[in-house]
Amino acid sequence: MKKFLNSPDDLVHDSIAGLVMAHEDLLALNDAPLFVCRRVPKQGRVALVSGGGSGHEPLHTGYVGVGMLDAACPGQVFTAPTPDQIVAAAQRVEAGQGVLMIVKNYGGDCASFQVASDMLEMDCATVLVNDDVAVEHSTHTTGRRGVAGTLVVEKMVGAAAEAGANLYECKALGVRVNTNTASMGIALGSCTVPEEAAPTFDIGPGEMEVGVGIHGEPGRYRRPLMPADDIVALLLDPILKDLSLAADRPVLLHVNGFGGTPLGELHLLNRIATQRLRNQGLNVKRWLVGNHTTSLEMAGASLTVTALDDELISLWDAPVTTPSLRW
Amino acid sequence: MKKFLNSPDDLVHDSIAGLVMAHEDLLALNDAPLFVCRRVPKQGRVALVSGGGSGHEPLHTGYVGVGMLDAACPGQVFTAPTPDQIVAAAQRVEAGQGVLMIVKNYGGDCASFQVASDMLEMDCATVLVNDDVAVEHSTHTTGRRGVAGTLVVEKMVGAAAEAGANLYECKALGVRVNTNTASMGIALGSCTVPEEAAPTFDIGPGEMEVGVGIHGEPGRYRRPLMPADDIVALLLDPILKDLSLAADRPVLLHVNGFGGTPLGELHLLNRIATQRLRNQGLNVKRWLVGNHTTSLEMAGASLTVTALDDELISLWDAPVTTPSLRW
Repeated sequence: MKKFLNSPDDLVHDSIAGLVMAHEDLLALNDAPLFVCRRVPKQGRVALVSGGGSGHEPLHTGYVGVGMLDAACPGQVFTAPTPDQIVAAAQRVEAGQGVLMIVKNYGGDCASFQVASDMLEMDCATVLVNDDVAVEHSTHTTGRRGVAGTLVVEKMVGAAAEAGANLYECKALGVRVNTNTASMGIALGSCTVPEEAAPTFDIGPGEMEVGVGIHGEPGRYRRPLMPADDIVALLLDPILKDLSLAADRPVLLHVNGFGGTPLGELHLLNRIATQRLRNQGLNVKRWLVGNHTTSLEMAGASLTVTALDDELISLWDAPVTTPSLRW
Repeated sequence: MKKFLNSPDDLVHDSIAGLVMAHEDLLALNDAPLFVCRRVPKQGRVALVSGGGSGHEPLHTGYVGVGMLDAACPGQVFTAPTPDQIVAAAQRVEAGQGVLMIVKNYGGDCASFQVASDMLEMDCATVLVNDDVAVEHSTHTTGRRGVAGTLVVEKMVGAAAEAGANLYECKALGVRVNTNTASMGIALGSCTVPEEAAPTFDIGPGEMEVGVGIHGEPGRYRRPLMPADDIVALLLDPILKDLSLAADRPVLLHVNGFGGTPLGELHLLNRIATQRLRNQGLNVKRWLVGNHTTSLEMAGASLTVTALDDELISLWDAPVTTPSLRW
């Protein structure tokens, strides 16, 4: 295992401290329990709190800022945050209108956020994200996994909260965005968790894992490596089957890298996926291409499609100022 | 070799087309000869043209936009663009005040930009970037290599050009930023060029290449893998020796990933490097952390330090709207 680190025990804390140093104008660090929040708190608005295992950066800590999250709680690598992190973060950012928790559907995350909600004496609601169409149940979940579509939920609900939507409206919006979002990923290579000596999974030199999860969990099947055109079809067809969209529906296409795939290859996938969606009669109106929801240094990518309407387009387009999403 | 591609021959074109699709509000594509330029041309200002081998994305194509480059010419992977690309790009974006070419110091790039300048019937000037302090001469260069500091030159000169600086002023500024910038990198793993079957270089499971170039060129020496604290010292000490800064000098620290290193590890390096610079009496005032000047999927990172003054700080802070740098 070759990584830039001093000790696996300090990695998450020191990395988060380095993130906050680089964005001292935007972010504040709480050392113990560990969380990141906005430097300048929002007032009189619903506060959004998210979190999850580390190793998926920039998700979630890189999306704290104006127009998106109020706080993010990083767990150890691929491990849920603890309830005390979530409780402390919620208490810090609550601004009189309650707290919405945005949670990826994994057993550990659901349990921690549930315990935290029960402990908090404030209005709380939760949006569970489960956009991954690859498998119905996985090694870490009951039901579908939450993957790269989480960013889309965080962005759109963040814009609504900033504009003054109440807790009920924010939750309903988050559920709607999640319902309108579907994702699927593919891995060409594994990642290695810093605490472990060996890669998370073995994959042969000519193989790919179709439908892989963001912790390297198994997907639908192994296949010999295919050309990019065929890979895009393997990913998009189940996504479109799941969403079942009418012709000419406007959509957002998010091409996400898992950390070890060059940006140039992601843009190549974007071209192929955009053309395929257009050929199927859909109206691709917005794009996001890059390494946003990663799995350490895993080689691979996922495609996410969100069905849009005028409201969702304007929430997506609303200004956002975070370390890793900014317009 | 496992990559997302249809054919190595189409990779660069199709990838650039995918970039422009995702940023149709900002960018325009010229198919043949291949270049990317702003969708809305600048008027009555010096135009900035850069380019170089592909495989370093987002450099340079991801930095075309308001406040930075006017056009970028991508060559094949790790191969200089041809003079006809540069000539066509310069003719397209020249806006009455001449063209400044920002060129990384590699033999092929220097030759192509020189030939293009000779062919162009317009005011042209060139800034050569050679910020890499690792080696005096490399397999691809006479003199020092141009690496991640190129982005700093492009950002600051881009801001000056946007504000109306003339060609002479833009060139002088670019030379000054380059002189005030020093970088050094380290590789933990190699990359594989799509046209080649094998990795660019071999590196053992417990080794690192100190001073590596962004094409995988040899650096200063091989060492057994060290803790991150020691790696930062190995990189920063030659940088600071080169810059020889007075105490309390304000600096920009750019922690750059080579493509295969997770963002969390880059933030860890940022924390260590920031503290080390502060311990040495320097005033770290600005940061940029991320995969900006990559070497395909190479595992590794570089540190860049730019000595600042009030003018350079305000040029760095000036608004920028490009696919991969935006504030």
